[in-house]
Amino acid sequence: MDDLGPLCAGIDPHPALLAHWGLDETVQGLEVFAMTCVEAFAGTAAVVKPQSAFFERFGSAGIAVLERTLQGLREAGTLTVLDVKRGDIGSTMAAYAHAYLSQDSPLRADAITVSPFLGFGSLRPALDLARETGRGVFVLALTSNPDGPRVQHATLHGSSVAGGVVDGVTSQNLTDRRAGVLGSVGLVVGATVGSAVQTLGLDLAAANAPLLAPGVGAQGATADDLRSVFGAALPNVLASSSREILGAGPDGVALRAAARHTARQLNAILST
Amino acid sequence: MDDLGPLCAGIDPHPALLAHWGLDETVQGLEVFAMTCVEAFAGTAAVVKPQSAFFERFGSAGIAVLERTLQGLREAGTLTVLDVKRGDIGSTMAAYAHAYLSQDSPLRADAITVSPFLGFGSLRPALDLARETGRGVFVLALTSNPDGPRVQHATLHGSSVAGGVVDGVTSQNLTDRRAGVLGSVGLVVGATVGSAVQTLGLDLAAANAPLLAPGVGAQGATADDLRSVFGAALPNVLASSSREILGAGPDGVALRAAARHTARQLNAILST
Repeated sequence: MDDLGPLCAGIDPHPALLAHWGLDETVQGLEVFAMTCVEAFAGTAAVVKPQSAFFERFGSAGIAVLERTLQGLREAGTLTVLDVKRGDIGSTMAAYAHAYLSQDSPLRADAITVSPFLGFGSLRPALDLARETGRGVFVLALTSNPDGPRVQHATLHGSSVAGGVVDGVTSQNLTDRRAGVLGSVGLVVGATVGSAVQTLGLDLAAANAPLLAPGVGAQGATADDLRSVFGAALPNVLASSSREILGAGPDGVALRAAARHTARQLNAILST
Repeated sequence: MDDLGPLCAGIDPHPALLAHWGLDETVQGLEVFAMTCVEAFAGTAAVVKPQSAFFERFGSAGIAVLERTLQGLREAGTLTVLDVKRGDIGSTMAAYAHAYLSQDSPLRADAITVSPFLGFGSLRPALDLARETGRGVFVLALTSNPDGPRVQHATLHGSSVAGGVVDGVTSQNLTDRRAGVLGSVGLVVGATVGSAVQTLGLDLAAANAPLLAPGVGAQGATADDLRSVFGAALPNVLASSSREILGAGPDGVALRAAARHTARQLNAILST
């Protein structure tokens, strides 16, 4: 992020984008899409985020493309967040952790997204394995979709569900905070959640966490919105952008230019 | 369930079980394990539930084994619940729905588990596609792991997160309820959640939902516990059992006998 700015470029090969790129809705179309993104985004975006769902659609053949996508980014030295939003308990959560965060898995990424519906503590196997292998985890906390607050704003003994997640991440990143470095356990916080961070009393800066934030940019949050949502944690924001950049395809040069343009825009918004 | 009793037999090829069966922790070991389960459980258990995490561990090769597992069960006419606990929004949730609930996907199952951390409404694409293709969805509601209540018991405007999920499922199954048939949108409710159903005021019977319940049997809930947790909804319980049955392997005949024995035990517990 220091070198390349706050852009997390998504690889979201959804049907409308495949069509827009003149590609068939097949595993071959998926592969051309993903590999074009790898080439365009490697070395351009700080982080690249493939969305697993669009690969899972094509079954094992799609997952094989996902493996090659992650491998291509790894070989280019570009960090990856694999967006899988996994969440389970016990040995099942340990298996998810192994699948995505171990040293030798074909699907290993630098970080994954996880979902805490079974409680923050249920994510322990992923948190532990990520620490052991030098990887990261982004925990869903506060999203801007209309149905999100029904769960995330709910409270137990006066503390919100989102607040519980932030507390868990804060503890997890404490050692790194004392060492003066950004923690490896991040939060997913929508840039357009409005006043929720204040209302729920969340201290995002104290979490010392990378903040994966969808919704920054052209049709999303403005610089003012961002200051209001993230406050002192603004430098930790990793802004996720997918559809805006991907719409510039299928030409690889245009795609890379769009990623650079978005990275500069985000830098400008986030540093004002 | 009318024909074969309330057993949902899990296929959970986790490392300790592979070792117990004398199998290597490889994709070949995974395949032998899964195919032995398919043969033993087909026609024996009402429903078979492969746990996706243990296949994802082996990347695309593991997912290919999952495809063959689902295919084998489909060909044998045995219903499947694929335990994937997916949850996302918009076109991403639609892609997950397509991956697991469409007519032509290699990973299609008769039902999947989903996670509502982004709100019950975020699951809409899966609910709609399942209805369209005659499939089902089981929504996580109330789990018995120690960390679950922090999220699931939290309340917004006096209604708990678990209660919101039950309300959503109740609406979704209303047409089926009026027609006098069990709905196709189920709930995941742990059999050992104690008094939570009463405390949170959940009406599980009104949901008219199949209730996927881990924790029934030998080391789990007793007949008294079950009456207390499920009340009038007891006939809708589909009891999930994995490790107890799978411990009887690797012999296929012993495995089938264990599944039959567990199905009878569950029937006895659930009908007392």
